[in-house]
Amino acid sequence: MKAAVMEGLKKPLVVRDVPDPVIDANGAVIRVEANGVCRSDWHAWVGDIEVASLPFVLGHEFVGVIEEAGKDVKRFKKGDRVIIPFSQGDGTCPECLAGHHNICDNSMMPGFHYWGGYGRYAAIPNADVNLVELPEEVSFEAGASIGCRFMTAYYGLVEQAKVRPGEWVAVHGCGGVGLSAIHIASAAGAIPIAVDIMPEKLEFAKKLGAAYVVNSREQNAPKAIKELTKGGAHVSVDALGISDTILNALLSLRKRGRHLQLGIASSENKMTALPTDYIVFKQIQFLGSLGMPAPYYPTMLQLVATGKLNPGLLVTKRISIEEAGKEIEAMTEFQTLGASIVTKW
Amino acid sequence: MKAAVMEGLKKPLVVRDVPDPVIDANGAVIRVEANGVCRSDWHAWVGDIEVASLPFVLGHEFVGVIEEAGKDVKRFKKGDRVIIPFSQGDGTCPECLAGHHNICDNSMMPGFHYWGGYGRYAAIPNADVNLVELPEEVSFEAGASIGCRFMTAYYGLVEQAKVRPGEWVAVHGCGGVGLSAIHIASAAGAIPIAVDIMPEKLEFAKKLGAAYVVNSREQNAPKAIKELTKGGAHVSVDALGISDTILNALLSLRKRGRHLQLGIASSENKMTALPTDYIVFKQIQFLGSLGMPAPYYPTMLQLVATGKLNPGLLVTKRISIEEAGKEIEAMTEFQTLGASIVTKW
Amino acid sequence: MKAAVMEGLKKPLVVRDVPDPVIDANGAVIRVEANGVCRSDWHAWVGDIEVASLPFVLGHEFVGVIEEAGKDVKRFKKGDRVIIPFSQGDGTCPECLAGHHNICDNSMMPGFHYWGGYGRYAAIPNADVNLVELPEEVSFEAGASIGCRFMTAYYGLVEQAKVRPGEWVAVHGCGGVGLSAIHIASAAGAIPIAVDIMPEKLEFAKKLGAAYVVNSREQNAPKAIKELTKGGAHVSVDALGISDTILNALLSLRKRGRHLQLGIASSENKMTALPTDYIVFKQIQFLGSLGMPAPYYPTMLQLVATGKLNPGLLVTKRISIEEAGKEIEAMTEFQTLGASIVTKW
Amino acid sequence: MKAAVMEGLKKPLVVRDVPDPVIDANGAVIRVEANGVCRSDWHAWVGDIEVASLPFVLGHEFVGVIEEAGKDVKRFKKGDRVIIPFSQGDGTCPECLAGHHNICDNSMMPGFHYWGGYGRYAAIPNADVNLVELPEEVSFEAGASIGCRFMTAYYGLVEQAKVRPGEWVAVHGCGGVGLSAIHIASAAGAIPIAVDIMPEKLEFAKKLGAAYVVNSREQNAPKAIKELTKGGAHVSVDALGISDTILNALLSLRKRGRHLQLGIASSENKMTALPTDYIVFKQIQFLGSLGMPAPYYPTMLQLVATGKLNPGLLVTKRISIEEAGKEIEAMTEFQTLGASIVTKW
Ligand SMILES: [Zn+2]
Ligand SMILES: [Zn+2]
Ligand SMILES: [Zn+2]
Ligand SMILES: [Zn+2]
Ligand SMILES: [Zn+2]
Ligand SMILES: [Zn+2]
Ligand SMILES: [Zn+2]
Ligand SMILES: [Zn+2]
Ligand SMILES: [Zn+2]
Ligand SMILES: [Zn+2]
Repeated sequence: MKAAVMEGLKKPLVVRDVPDPVIDANGAVIRVEANGVCRSDWHAWVGDIEVASLPFVLGHEFVGVIEEAGKDVKRFKKGDRVIIPFSQGDGTCPECLAGHHNICDNSMMPGFHYWGGYGRYAAIPNADVNLVELPEEVSFEAGASIGCRFMTAYYGLVEQAKVRPGEWVAVHGCGGVGLSAIHIASAAGAIPIAVDIMPEKLEFAKKLGAAYVVNSREQNAPKAIKELTKGGAHVSVDALGISDTILNALLSLRKRGRHLQLGIASSENKMTALPTDYIVFKQIQFLGSLGMPAPYYPTMLQLVATGKLNPGLLVTKRISIEEAGKEIEAMTEFQTLGASIVTKW
Repeated sequence: MKAAVMEGLKKPLVVRDVPDPVIDANGAVIRVEANGVCRSDWHAWVGDIEVASLPFVLGHEFVGVIEEAGKDVKRFKKGDRVIIPFSQGDGTCPECLAGHHNICDNSMMPGFHYWGGYGRYAAIPNADVNLVELPEEVSFEAGASIGCRFMTAYYGLVEQAKVRPGEWVAVHGCGGVGLSAIHIASAAGAIPIAVDIMPEKLEFAKKLGAAYVVNSREQNAPKAIKELTKGGAHVSVDALGISDTILNALLSLRKRGRHLQLGIASSENKMTALPTDYIVFKQIQFLGSLGMPAPYYPTMLQLVATGKLNPGLLVTKRISIEEAGKEIEAMTEFQTLGASIVTKW
Repeated sequence: MKAAVMEGLKKPLVVRDVPDPVIDANGAVIRVEANGVCRSDWHAWVGDIEVASLPFVLGHEFVGVIEEAGKDVKRFKKGDRVIIPFSQGDGTCPECLAGHHNICDNSMMPGFHYWGGYGRYAAIPNADVNLVELPEEVSFEAGASIGCRFMTAYYGLVEQAKVRPGEWVAVHGCGGVGLSAIHIASAAGAIPIAVDIMPEKLEFAKKLGAAYVVNSREQNAPKAIKELTKGGAHVSVDALGISDTILNALLSLRKRGRHLQLGIASSENKMTALPTDYIVFKQIQFLGSLGMPAPYYPTMLQLVATGKLNPGLLVTKRISIEEAGKEIEAMTEFQTLGASIVTKW
Repeated sequence: MKAAVMEGLKKPLVVRDVPDPVIDANGAVIRVEANGVCRSDWHAWVGDIEVASLPFVLGHEFVGVIEEAGKDVKRFKKGDRVIIPFSQGDGTCPECLAGHHNICDNSMMPGFHYWGGYGRYAAIPNADVNLVELPEEVSFEAGASIGCRFMTAYYGLVEQAKVRPGEWVAVHGCGGVGLSAIHIASAAGAIPIAVDIMPEKLEFAKKLGAAYVVNSREQNAPKAIKELTKGGAHVSVDALGISDTILNALLSLRKRGRHLQLGIASSENKMTALPTDYIVFKQIQFLGSLGMPAPYYPTMLQLVATGKLNPGLLVTKRISIEEAGKEIEAMTEFQTLGASIVTKW
């Protein structure tokens, strides 16, 4: 099959022919139709995240059509349109049995643990557990843009923070996760406030549903948010993982507020100093969330199908597989706004 | 003060001068600016619901401006714009102390237990507990249309059924409560299905946010809903209170579905035969809900202020206090679509 | 293998040799060490419940040791002590994927759909999903007595009604489910009230943890409970499934009370007349619950292991497999107190 | 009235006559029958916590009998036995209206903001909101020992961490809050593990219900707990407020575990370095909790009344009002085990 192959750290991806993937009785081969380009690809490419072995095929944000289903697969058959949650489980550990595949004791991620979506075909293990039907009404492009950042924001807001209509949601950091959180909060009837230091990101946030924006370089963000919301946000989201945004997010909350931690710290800075007395006196909840388990996809996809959620708004560029390597390399230099999707093979 | 006075059962309301209301140290006098005309007014007028004494001033869906606040009132002062939840509490029973004023052990309702919104002024007891600030962005008309049906639907869906984004919500009966439920479910990111037997009500439901409509005279509603939703609604709402709609609503649910009971049965038919085995085998929740306590208003009002909720869509007619009596009388003959509001004094 | 075989409706069970069970790659063969005798066995034996085919081996409340595990089974191996939840799932339907195997779209029950615990060996399909490790500290006898009634009561109270410390829990009907509910409520720090018409059952209920008992033949149960609890129970349990107890249970509740429906109606009487207005005005929750999914077992078993729960208190008789048939037959004549367990082979 | 009066920082309390307290129409005068001696009294006495003015009467853990009720008080009358939650509210802020008096926007604490329980009489403002009926079955001594530490632990575990039967609860720090948490967790059907560095405290913890103890000076507490619980505690409690115990508590959790923060940091050390990535990857919840609102008392008191909770186990000494000063002074030197209660006037 054709694939954009990573042959070494920081070496240009090579588009070439590689062996077709093979599956066991529980697996499925997917013909990839769209694959999102993610900063995590760049992290793997420069060596921050380790991949299984080299040469390797990256790609963890993809959708496609089942080319072949293993003989023990019950829920899917050749020809089915599917989306692949990147937080996959083995299906048998206690977390998976209870429906929490995203924190599986033996988690597997396509594009890191096994070959992913920069190949024309990908082999998914435990297909019954790790695939989700993509409704007809959801395009491949929209499906790919649900990727890892959108679904992470969705699960965190809806299932962990349990955001409710009319609540103020302050989202700190307007990268892919943060913009997704803003869009989702808005669709859920909440009132999103976007916080960032870059004006163009705040502008983009407005398009995605931010009711208000706060430039945290120009303003004291917690103070601005407390004034705007008359007391503080009901929910704050850290979408970056650095001490400044985590603290700003926490301090933006009203009493009984919920802080949703989505951002992951860089490796140098694993501990964050937090005001525990403040958490006690305000009865704050500080909630971690990771990815999204497959069983929670259908209601999210239904929202996309009915047009109430539009992850495609995050897509700013459609590229061919030949351009994928350059797109990843470009992330070394600058931060992109929105997402690029490989749609041409 | 000027008021439309009920002087006897089924006798035309008389607009005349009556004594100004008086308050104790905890009460507040409101200058009424808008008052919704409700079928419950008609029920009181014909004698289905008893009022405190005659002559009487009906009206339980009103907003206005504080004319005078008792000396012990802490949260409000003359000139404040306020909305009056009709499900009022004494503030000291166990339910009120825990924030559930709507099921107060000594509940008081304006327009039934004491004079209400068809007078130019109304005296609200326990003002700190029973008034809610009306945000500047919310017009008096919109405030009055939140009345009793909209807030009932809001509290039921958001706080009892805990509706979530992407869920299918089947609303059975498209009167004021049902239409409100459809509008609110849509704003909360759910996907509402409207069910009724009258085509014009279903048309109106679409304007308020129904994604799909089912005419239950022409179709088997549970069957149609199960097909549409591939398994049944996550939430069903009975907004009428008759056996047929309650049963249809229950049978529209998928496993683990929640049925929200908002409709009140007519007095002749207090018991409804329900399939308890079905409730067990599907792990259904059957949830009752009544009115809405004042502490839950602010997030709802914030949604109205930001335009995400538009209760004003339910308003089909603005009338003067002189026309109020005729409007109530007219309910004897036919059922109105949407709501009429007294806005002219 | 040796088994007590049902060869026809209402015919004495015959203890004889039958073929050993066989499994596929995902199944496991269990050597049965204890099997509870249940009224559902009697219902199958008289034909109220249909079994897969004749001859048949009943038995759905059993524990044992793995004799053989299929080659694809990951969580278990020969020699492991296990308990078999009777509400089993296929592991791949949406309910199973989300951890709700008890309401699987393709549910399978041992002793009804396939041969169960009255045989020396039983073959369990989807072993990774449908078996639970039995902690060393829990005896086979205690394990078997968790059977179907105890786990049903546990899941209903803890996961559906979410019973909390200090709450009044009124349990209507003191058969196996009801007595289990009383014992579990007590262990959870709630205050159980037992309701029945038979004094000896109420006496037994006290041994299992009932703080108070009400004889509903002698007293108006809802009235007695409301007086005792100063307002009504927080949680009521119907453990019988007949109109009288369901209604008594509902009417025993205080405002915002939760009714837990565990009892199944007899086939003649599938609809129960319920006061829906009362449910609205009191904001009652009426909650159905069925069996218990395997992923929820470990915390329950931990309670048994630490002695905080003692399902063995329900065991009143230990019998041999040769006596099993007579024990089932005897249920035609009278109702037993507590449970009998086959422990001798 | 007679009172033990604080006349200056670190000066011996003087037992002398002071003016009787006076109340307004909403207040109540309590004749104090028992008052707990708390380390917070010592903190106020040395100046760590500021009191309203000098001379002052400390005491925030007391119960008694109503001597006089203001004319607007509705729920109480002279002669009623009452308990006084120390986390009192004004009754009219948004938190109070919703039932969260413990985080009132204008919170008042007896013994800090106004004269408290070391006087024979105390005047409680907003009596309808800030008093709770003490059931006949609960002695004054038991009532006083519910004080501030027991109720804090109760509300945190039951209402914030929502501890459930069968869950492992690791309590870090066995002072008054920690011992209370152990006792409450046990009564709620959870399995408490006590963690401390002092063997005598661990011994005391066993008497209160600890199923296991871990000496964190001798063992790596998180490691020991993970082994014991096969994966980690479901709930961890920090009952001290220092970095070591907070971190140990967090690291003792299993996936989806809830950390309950009850301990307050000393003033020098307000920020605690926490592993936010760990919180994300394990989907941990970090929950702050403060005091306990009055409306949540009745179920807790019911547990004391029925003997399922026994706060009196924490009482190690009964003293007279004349001895109170010495008891507070003694805290300068050493840490006491359990609680002392003033019971003699
Ligand atoms: Zn990604
Ligand atoms: Zn897993
Ligand atoms: Zn009340
Ligand atoms: Zn109305
Ligand atoms: Zn039966
Ligand atoms: Zn299933
Ligand atoms: Zn059974
Ligand atoms: Zn201290
Ligand atoms: Zn307050
Ligand atoms: Zn204290």
